[in-house]
Amino acid sequence: MLTNLMNSDPICAPATAQGTGAVAIVRVSGDSCRDRISPIFGPDGLKTPIDKMVSHKAYFAKIYDGDAFLDEVLVTFFAAPHSYTGEDSIEISCHGSTYIVKRIMELLINNGIRLAEPGEFTMRAFRNGKLDLSQAEAVADLIASQSKAAHDIAARQMRGNYSQRIKSLRQKLVDFTSLIELELDFAEEDVTFADRSSLSSLLAEIKTEINSLSASFKAGNALKNGIPVAIVGKPNVGKSTLLNAILHEDKAIVSAIPGTTRDSIEDVFNLGGFNFRFIDTAGIRHSTDDEIEKIGIERTFSKIKEAMIVLYVTDAASFDKSEVRQFADIINDPQRLFVTIANKTDIYQGKITDNDGITLYISAKQGTGIDELERTLVGFATTMSGRHDTLVSNTRHYNALQNALAALNKVEEGIASDLPTDLLAIDLRSALTDLGLITGEDITNDEVLGNIFGKFCIGK
Amino acid sequence: MLTNLMNSDPICAPATAQGTGAVAIVRVSGDSCRDRISPIFGPDGLKTPIDKMVSHKAYFAKIYDGDAFLDEVLVTFFAAPHSYTGEDSIEISCHGSTYIVKRIMELLINNGIRLAEPGEFTMRAFRNGKLDLSQAEAVADLIASQSKAAHDIAARQMRGNYSQRIKSLRQKLVDFTSLIELELDFAEEDVTFADRSSLSSLLAEIKTEINSLSASFKAGNALKNGIPVAIVGKPNVGKSTLLNAILHEDKAIVSAIPGTTRDSIEDVFNLGGFNFRFIDTAGIRHSTDDEIEKIGIERTFSKIKEAMIVLYVTDAASFDKSEVRQFADIINDPQRLFVTIANKTDIYQGKITDNDGITLYISAKQGTGIDELERTLVGFATTMSGRHDTLVSNTRHYNALQNALAALNKVEEGIASDLPTDLLAIDLRSALTDLGLITGEDITNDEVLGNIFGKFCIGK
Repeated sequence: MLTNLMNSDPICAPATAQGTGAVAIVRVSGDSCRDRISPIFGPDGLKTPIDKMVSHKAYFAKIYDGDAFLDEVLVTFFAAPHSYTGEDSIEISCHGSTYIVKRIMELLINNGIRLAEPGEFTMRAFRNGKLDLSQAEAVADLIASQSKAAHDIAARQMRGNYSQRIKSLRQKLVDFTSLIELELDFAEEDVTFADRSSLSSLLAEIKTEINSLSASFKAGNALKNGIPVAIVGKPNVGKSTLLNAILHEDKAIVSAIPGTTRDSIEDVFNLGGFNFRFIDTAGIRHSTDDEIEKIGIERTFSKIKEAMIVLYVTDAASFDKSEVRQFADIINDPQRLFVTIANKTDIYQGKITDNDGITLYISAKQGTGIDELERTLVGFATTMSGRHDTLVSNTRHYNALQNALAALNKVEEGIASDLPTDLLAIDLRSALTDLGLITGEDITNDEVLGNIFGKFCIGK
Repeated sequence: MLTNLMNSDPICAPATAQGTGAVAIVRVSGDSCRDRISPIFGPDGLKTPIDKMVSHKAYFAKIYDGDAFLDEVLVTFFAAPHSYTGEDSIEISCHGSTYIVKRIMELLINNGIRLAEPGEFTMRAFRNGKLDLSQAEAVADLIASQSKAAHDIAARQMRGNYSQRIKSLRQKLVDFTSLIELELDFAEEDVTFADRSSLSSLLAEIKTEINSLSASFKAGNALKNGIPVAIVGKPNVGKSTLLNAILHEDKAIVSAIPGTTRDSIEDVFNLGGFNFRFIDTAGIRHSTDDEIEKIGIERTFSKIKEAMIVLYVTDAASFDKSEVRQFADIINDPQRLFVTIANKTDIYQGKITDNDGITLYISAKQGTGIDELERTLVGFATTMSGRHDTLVSNTRHYNALQNALAALNKVEEGIASDLPTDLLAIDLRSALTDLGLITGEDITNDEVLGNIFGKFCIGK
């Protein structure tokens, strides 16, 4: 949790990834950061006096560790408000040695520049109006994004894609709420400043927007974290072979995603710019009459419900319509994809008859038909991402939207049942608070901000 | 091995360490790199036209992936020759996402900017006279340095600490060699342009310098790679406990050093800015008359010879003067340190009498006396690093110095035995080539350069 919410004292942190590289950047921001940093350049490390530096211009400089030369660097000063944080800031571009970065950080700290908390730079940018809260969160998502789809969502959110709309709707609601609250001041005179029918239509407008954004969350979340895919079917129909046939393509993501376990890394793959994530359905072994096995299968069925794509694998030769129906029914949803995969076409070339939905014929063993399966997956993902103008992918935003909706419903009910103005005002304020949580307007609870920015990486 | 030695076509590479950070830098350098890079900013991503950009000034810009917004970045142009490479160069400072860096690299490559080979940026800097070969190698050492001592050696070398001296001595030798070679053109007239006694005193001067530099190599190499320390003694005297007492201090380095095995990582520790490295002497178990055991001990003794510091651990109660002499004799060298450690002072408080050299009394188990041992180690390392004005730490340089010395010895012998001028000239040229290998002057063999720069990390 970020604790320094209101300070503008000088802070510093490495801004580039840890490890050895050609170059590393140490970032400094805050009040009088130029004065504080100046001693590390010694008497002759900087030809242009630091207070004569032109903003945004890179200067060659030498850093001294006491009397000893430490490194040749480039120093760039960014004058407030034209910096990331909106404060006076300095970037030091040094040689990418872990020792040098560590030592520069120690020198800065010795000169009274505090180590930044995680997210503190972006917190200051937010506080100085450089970006709103939803945009600040998008910066973290942008940095963490591992696929084109996840990147696109974060990039759109960073550019204010829906926070602008929420802000403008919220502003209208603020104006109305002020009028409602004005009525309270004249309570004894029984006047009405806020036209109830105008309020009702504004509420309807906002609710439509919220519903549309909420509806996009499932898709947005899947595109951000990987579209959940389940492979199901009887034993020995070739489920593992199919999984391997997909993963062993060179498209498979093998890089580590921080915060995920090694197992789940191995089960994420990228196709056409989308990440797909296999959900563990180990448990569906076979149909059975055994009661205990049935409970196991029930549990697995409920896990399958998390999937947006179910690949039902079968032998075309032993296709069991009742079984496929059983699976298809539990994800009976037009926004999800159910594919029957008739595997082992290398052995049996017959067709499945009497099946509903999509059937693909493949040989996982020989790799035939995998291309078409992949096209089907990418096609589904493309449709899913195109279904919404705007995609909400942040769980915090989704929860805020749901809470705002509940409060607005109460306002609507209140208008219908002629609730006293003061009670209406309470629900309106509650909806305003919820909407404000998304963009960061009027957040009076420091804990909320501290938690959000505390999740950022250090140096951001 | 770096293959593009003479090209100046535009190249690109990530310059910061891989992984997720707040910021990452992609570096571009070479002919017309501004024209080539320009399409990635789309029609409106850059407010200042790229050919109007002021050198060294950071501009806010947007990068587009086709029509889609990719990232908001800072772009800095460095006009030749005022850049790292000496060529027109551009640095893109983007959000530190692996996806964004990958995508920017792909965009650059699609625009005809080739992926740089490892070391290619620094190779160009060398070729354009921004630094000599020894300085270029120091850049790689600087980036890899993990201790203050290793950093200081690299930093001094980067600033031309001994390459300047070698260059100036070599230049004098070049002048003399030219005179000698002039004699060859007038061979039939039997004239002497090059005064042999002046040549002899120049040779003596250069040899003194080479000897001084060569003598520093052992120390330089130890300071760069960790000062080798051996802990020896009979079983059960507490060697492992002592090792743990030293390593379990919070000074122990636990970070991974690329290129070293896990075992050797665990055995490197940092004290007072110096890295110390335990060498594996497993094998000295006990004194024995068994012939096979004796061979094992001989082998271990030869390993101990690699150590610059030997810690001989004993029970003060059972101190065996003949054994300690046996160890002390094999590293009988004033430039090395032999310390007798009387361990287990928690049990026995008696003193060792009749011992040569340093004796320290400690209890590894209780941690008493470890401080003094550490002061002794740091004191030795400080003396070692202060013994030479200049430290050669690069094996390639050391070998070149040794070869130059051998060639100069042959020249001296040749003068003494009145060797014909043409044979003198061959040895002089050979010495010039060897000295030139250090600073990179007159290297005509591309393979030498390709190998040196090929060991650099990508982006450097």
